[in-house]
Amino acid sequence: MSGPVVAALGGGHGLAASLAALRFVTDEITAIVTVADNGGSSGRLRGEFGVLPPGDLRMALSALCEETEWGHTWRDVLQHRFEGTGPLGGHALGNLLIVALWELHEDPVAGLELVGRLLNARGRVLPMASVPLDIEADVLGADPKAPTEVTLVRGQAQVATTKGKVQDLRLLPDAPPAYPESIAAIRAADWVILGPGSWFTSVMPHLLVPDLADALAVTRARRLLVLNLEMVTNETAGFSAIHHLESFAAHAPGIRLDAVLADPSVVEDQGELEEACAALGAELHVHRVANSTAPTQHDRLRLATALQDVLGSGRRP
Amino acid sequence: MSGPVVAALGGGHGLAASLAALRFVTDEITAIVTVADNGGSSGRLRGEFGVLPPGDLRMALSALCEETEWGHTWRDVLQHRFEGTGPLGGHALGNLLIVALWELHEDPVAGLELVGRLLNARGRVLPMASVPLDIEADVLGADPKAPTEVTLVRGQAQVATTKGKVQDLRLLPDAPPAYPESIAAIRAADWVILGPGSWFTSVMPHLLVPDLADALAVTRARRLLVLNLEMVTNETAGFSAIHHLESFAAHAPGIRLDAVLADPSVVEDQGELEEACAALGAELHVHRVANSTAPTQHDRLRLATALQDVLGSGRRP
Repeated sequence: MSGPVVAALGGGHGLAASLAALRFVTDEITAIVTVADNGGSSGRLRGEFGVLPPGDLRMALSALCEETEWGHTWRDVLQHRFEGTGPLGGHALGNLLIVALWELHEDPVAGLELVGRLLNARGRVLPMASVPLDIEADVLGADPKAPTEVTLVRGQAQVATTKGKVQDLRLLPDAPPAYPESIAAIRAADWVILGPGSWFTSVMPHLLVPDLADALAVTRARRLLVLNLEMVTNETAGFSAIHHLESFAAHAPGIRLDAVLADPSVVEDQGELEEACAALGAELHVHRVANSTAPTQHDRLRLATALQDVLGSGRRP
Repeated sequence: MSGPVVAALGGGHGLAASLAALRFVTDEITAIVTVADNGGSSGRLRGEFGVLPPGDLRMALSALCEETEWGHTWRDVLQHRFEGTGPLGGHALGNLLIVALWELHEDPVAGLELVGRLLNARGRVLPMASVPLDIEADVLGADPKAPTEVTLVRGQAQVATTKGKVQDLRLLPDAPPAYPESIAAIRAADWVILGPGSWFTSVMPHLLVPDLADALAVTRARRLLVLNLEMVTNETAGFSAIHHLESFAAHAPGIRLDAVLADPSVVEDQGELEEACAALGAELHVHRVANSTAPTQHDRLRLATALQDVLGSGRRP
């Protein structure tokens, strides 16, 4: 297998689902991962060491692990969280390994490559920016008692769980530098894939990094947006599939899409959705990609099958 | 290379020095490691998780790592200690990895084997007992203001740094079970090597584990004691080489030695030392094994050369 050259953008469980599927479709994967997490183990490590939050990077690497006893064993070790509520309780071992490698190697990308070698990972994983980020949003009705008030909500974990409606999204610092490897990967790709994932905290942030937005605008790659299985979340209260496309256009005014992949469960009116896709330059692909027993999660084989169809459907212009 | 079958008993830096040398002499190494450490990273992990102290196990595995870029890279990662004074500061990454593996695998030996596979280690590493131990000593003059008083000192770290004279040494619990693999390794060895290492806290403890003392008494293996380079330490104030042999005989009344290896710097009167060795059944081998620039440390190539000579000198009876 070699397959199309793919850059997959996102963070958290959504990106891990996309990578776990992509690894069946191609060897040529570069994951570009949000680095704004401020909760859980990653948040504690940012606080203690001032490093990039390692959790989403660890999950992306684990999703790309070799499908062998060795790969699965080390994936399980890296994903393992310490028990209890002591100083180590809740830390994922892989997060600690990544931070140790960052203390040992000056180049954070070299440390991630070493974890990739340990897992015999298919593809590689890069941070979206070279500095830890914070997400800040203007939120309408964050306080349910003041539904018409716009307040500032700061922090990925806080934005992801806000009760209000995200109106404007910013990164702090506001124009963070990207790694040259990420820019090069977007420019060299056959396909760039955005999503699935938490809309405002995992998918949209990349569009706010100027280096990545520029690369996305000028790349000869085709651009695929994979829509979520849950339209309505804390972050996206009241959203439909069409709202997601409108939100994308608002955050990325210069960037066209070539394809949108949607599970039938999120398609309310296929004609209207096709029109909204066409307005962005994209063709709509409706494939059943939800897991039968856990319908809010992408099934990795169904998603792999759908990605194979979509990525095979368009030639690089 | 295959070489003689060796069981190496000890802990800490002394055992690591012995293993780093042995790996040049044979492939067939089983390290059997003290598990009484209660200080530093290991002490904190015992406190948080109730596990065996992993530090000396990690050091032994690291000493056996493959002599390749891969082996050295992962050895350096496992040996790396987190910076700072926060919740992770001072923890060795390898200690955390071992504890994570112990949470994942029921059998602690399986977790250590996996670390050995990561390092492509030559040989294997086993804990001295299957439960965490504490060392307890009766110490004469532990309080310098009361030089004739015998007091109870508890804890490996506390005994290792006592200002007084260790008179009696005990383990808590007092007859801990050994792993069957350790017993089998001692019985199947061509050579069992004790020391170098902190005399009362790394070398003598094995003799207080009944299963190991029994195996040492009945094994057909030859037994070598490697004397330390520093005779006088906190633990062994006023000790000469001969005092070490007398102390060995007191702690292991039923156990004979076949060989004693000493650096010329610790031999005060060679004739007297030969007599003391002969009283235990042993031949004295005097080899220069100290490092030229760090004379309190064993030089791994000099020690390897000496071990090759000594281990080659005696056939299994």
